[in-house]
Amino acid sequence: MQITAAALCEMLQGSLEGNADSVVDSVAKIEEGHSRALSFLANPKYEEHIYSTESGIVLVSRDFKPSKAINATLIRVDDPYVAFTQILSEYIAQINNKEGIEEPSFIGENSTVGEGLYLGAFVYIGKNCKIGKNVKIYPNVVIGDNVEIGDNTVIYANVSIYLHCKVGADCIIHSGAVIGSDGFGFAPQPDGTYAKIPQTGNVIIEDNVEIGANTCLDRATMGSTIIRKGVKLDNLIQIAHNVEVGENTVIAGGTAIAGSTRLGKNIVVGGQVGIAGHINIADYTQIGAQSGIIGSIKEPKKAWMGSPVTEFKQHFKSQAVFRNLPELDKKVHDLQKEIEALREALNNKG
Amino acid sequence: MQITAAALCEMLQGSLEGNADSVVDSVAKIEEGHSRALSFLANPKYEEHIYSTESGIVLVSRDFKPSKAINATLIRVDDPYVAFTQILSEYIAQINNKEGIEEPSFIGENSTVGEGLYLGAFVYIGKNCKIGKNVKIYPNVVIGDNVEIGDNTVIYANVSIYLHCKVGADCIIHSGAVIGSDGFGFAPQPDGTYAKIPQTGNVIIEDNVEIGANTCLDRATMGSTIIRKGVKLDNLIQIAHNVEVGENTVIAGGTAIAGSTRLGKNIVVGGQVGIAGHINIADYTQIGAQSGIIGSIKEPKKAWMGSPVTEFKQHFKSQAVFRNLPELDKKVHDLQKEIEALREALNNKG
Amino acid sequence: MQITAAALCEMLQGSLEGNADSVVDSVAKIEEGHSRALSFLANPKYEEHIYSTESGIVLVSRDFKPSKAINATLIRVDDPYVAFTQILSEYIAQINNKEGIEEPSFIGENSTVGEGLYLGAFVYIGKNCKIGKNVKIYPNVVIGDNVEIGDNTVIYANVSIYLHCKVGADCIIHSGAVIGSDGFGFAPQPDGTYAKIPQTGNVIIEDNVEIGANTCLDRATMGSTIIRKGVKLDNLIQIAHNVEVGENTVIAGGTAIAGSTRLGKNIVVGGQVGIAGHINIADYTQIGAQSGIIGSIKEPKKAWMGSPVTEFKQHFKSQAVFRNLPELDKKVHDLQKEIEALREALNNKG
Repeated sequence: MQITAAALCEMLQGSLEGNADSVVDSVAKIEEGHSRALSFLANPKYEEHIYSTESGIVLVSRDFKPSKAINATLIRVDDPYVAFTQILSEYIAQINNKEGIEEPSFIGENSTVGEGLYLGAFVYIGKNCKIGKNVKIYPNVVIGDNVEIGDNTVIYANVSIYLHCKVGADCIIHSGAVIGSDGFGFAPQPDGTYAKIPQTGNVIIEDNVEIGANTCLDRATMGSTIIRKGVKLDNLIQIAHNVEVGENTVIAGGTAIAGSTRLGKNIVVGGQVGIAGHINIADYTQIGAQSGIIGSIKEPKKAWMGSPVTEFKQHFKSQAVFRNLPELDKKVHDLQKEIEALREALNNKG
Repeated sequence: MQITAAALCEMLQGSLEGNADSVVDSVAKIEEGHSRALSFLANPKYEEHIYSTESGIVLVSRDFKPSKAINATLIRVDDPYVAFTQILSEYIAQINNKEGIEEPSFIGENSTVGEGLYLGAFVYIGKNCKIGKNVKIYPNVVIGDNVEIGDNTVIYANVSIYLHCKVGADCIIHSGAVIGSDGFGFAPQPDGTYAKIPQTGNVIIEDNVEIGANTCLDRATMGSTIIRKGVKLDNLIQIAHNVEVGENTVIAGGTAIAGSTRLGKNIVVGGQVGIAGHINIADYTQIGAQSGIIGSIKEPKKAWMGSPVTEFKQHFKSQAVFRNLPELDKKVHDLQKEIEALREALNNKG
Repeated sequence: MQITAAALCEMLQGSLEGNADSVVDSVAKIEEGHSRALSFLANPKYEEHIYSTESGIVLVSRDFKPSKAINATLIRVDDPYVAFTQILSEYIAQINNKEGIEEPSFIGENSTVGEGLYLGAFVYIGKNCKIGKNVKIYPNVVIGDNVEIGDNTVIYANVSIYLHCKVGADCIIHSGAVIGSDGFGFAPQPDGTYAKIPQTGNVIIEDNVEIGANTCLDRATMGSTIIRKGVKLDNLIQIAHNVEVGENTVIAGGTAIAGSTRLGKNIVVGGQVGIAGHINIADYTQIGAQSGIIGSIKEPKKAWMGSPVTEFKQHFKSQAVFRNLPELDKKVHDLQKEIEALREALNNKG
């Protein structure tokens, strides 16, 4: 992408100061700029960088008053960060505007695809699938039979979606993610072996969901594992069978949620958290990284930490004492001696 | 799958009450049923649901005595849960009865395949491989040279199996699993770099093993990393080089086992557990989620928890005190003051 | 690979004792040998095995003096372990000497490849890519547009590399690894939803890096996520956007590093460690398994453990007390009673 300051200014409905013919073809942080880079200044504490930046064009707020000379061409806008993000989104949209069907690829019988489709080479789509409009499916993705994919969804390379699963519109699924693998359900037998409990359900992903790289969502034993609209899952997350993740809940990488647990909406879960099965987590809960949750959290909007979790502040108080446990232990030992000495002294006075 | 109550009844050798022509095409929990769903009632505490269920057919035990009117067609069997699982297994078997070779796919020279094979499009099989009977290999799987796969094994999409590995019969390997990647072995050099230690061994997976999505099993440095028969591994598990997992051991998601460690048989390992290298874990050990094990566990049949682990009950007692550490710390502080006061009082009396 | 004792001896410039025509075709530990296996004896504590080994050929040091009769053919070399590793590396090199382009595969327009290339079937290479000399790309790998791969790099099956990423020379990337997926960046909106922050940067992997199976490296929001030369990453690791990992740093499996954190050089990170975002870790730091790091570590060459970390020895002292917390709690309770008794006794004497 290559664009002039004049064109950028018009796109953003800004006002221009400097060289209208200045051309940029990439973006950079203001302190890491170069002559063909676009940057922005939003936070006043970075103001010093604008006087030394090598970026060709910088987005600034309409009321920004420079205190020194500036080399870069300026474009004044209402909100420089929002405007910058708008440019980035436009750039990403251009990169992802692939269209057409690359060969060889495989589409099973009775499957339908919408207009604007990109189908990378070596993509496999099973039978009876419904693929919406403007869907982008990158190379080597495998989609099983009877799967539905909503409009505008992007599925990156090497994703696997098992049969009968449903993915909503405007979703993004990153490489290596696995949607619909069997839930981990086995019945112990008298001889010590385990009999597989058939996993006949599916996974339903609603609209506007993003699924990170190599994240796994198991299909339900019966019914559905459900990821509600607006959920954002980072990389390498494990979601077990029959879990439900409420809308707009965000989960960081490495977290694992055991079977049949229900997370409410707008929850924030840190990285590497473990959540036991068959429990409920209230809306707006916040859970610190590496925590372990073994029982339901019923009161919403509270922050938790630890394994097993306690309330956030309580956990850090306990942690502070934990770090000094050897000293505490010694204090108790000393107290025992002192009391012994006192008792003797008291007896001697007797 | 679409089946009548009469046909189901015959298959299960049950006795029928209600409409023999009732048809079902799916399964559901009794409380989530609909007119074309099959459900079951096994646990008496769910009995109330059978009077209101919308499921078309319900499996019940032979001695079940309804206390109210029931709309659903009933099929009486010896064990409703076992019968229901039998139906589910039949359903899954029908879904997985794919057969034939889809094109394009790649089979290297001197490789042999058994009858009943399903080979999805874009599957790659290297040279000198031996693929057993009724093996189902889903699209985009890659199998390296000299690999053996036993009868009836199912390998889902995007699995990677490196050269020389052996997979037994009746195994299931889920999407994204990696079998036989190099063990993580490096020799530190005087200049601070690391020299790779060649990983020339393989992975051997015995019969009746299930491997979860995106789980990784590294090949041995020399010899074999071994997964014994009946082992069940959940998703996103890391098994390092030269590890041996004993038969019927079950490991939950996110667990990592370091090199050369041996797990005995019928062990149960919770999620996100870490197990150090070069240790042994006794048969029938149980390990709680998020535990860390840094030394061998020699006594079988005990339960452990914590990082590092202590015995289960001991860990929870310590955890209970941990949650109240700030109070304990304050008590000790108060005791110090009280003793000081006592000492002074004693001196004053002197 | 099949080789005679005479040929091996010449390759290693050793001296031979025994049957020069002895043939081996595999390697084994000295205690697990068989007639066609090559073994070595480096550590004197394993000497006993050389008198009973079934290995056909054993590498020993030039000054080794047997105390009993030995059946195996011996090759005396300066350093048996180094010589053995040399043989293994040669063996691995022979296995990986695949060359040529298997069909079908896909190479986008304007992409160039060097001599000695192996391109497995179903490999996808996008537009404008530069692939160096002697690069080995296994089946079903997907490489996005504008990617560069340096000489001699090996990329195993089912790896995904997103557009604009750069991989250095002499790297190894294991199956299922994802390079360049979007960073996990979202801006919370007033209505509780999250707006995606476009991730326009890339991932740069320098020379001599090894990336484990199913490990994920997110692209930078702007700029680059950087893996410096000589870094070794184990399986199932999460590296977030804009992270930098310094040269020769080694990270064990299951570890997750949050965004914009910088690790120095020659650091050793254990398995399942979590490192918070926007912090710095000093050179030569060592971090124990399952640790959690929430603040910068400024002093180099120290060892840390715990969640949150404290210095290694301090952590184990605290852990020792933790295991006895119930006893400590009881001691404090007893002390309270004893002081009460002393106070009463003192009052009575008053």
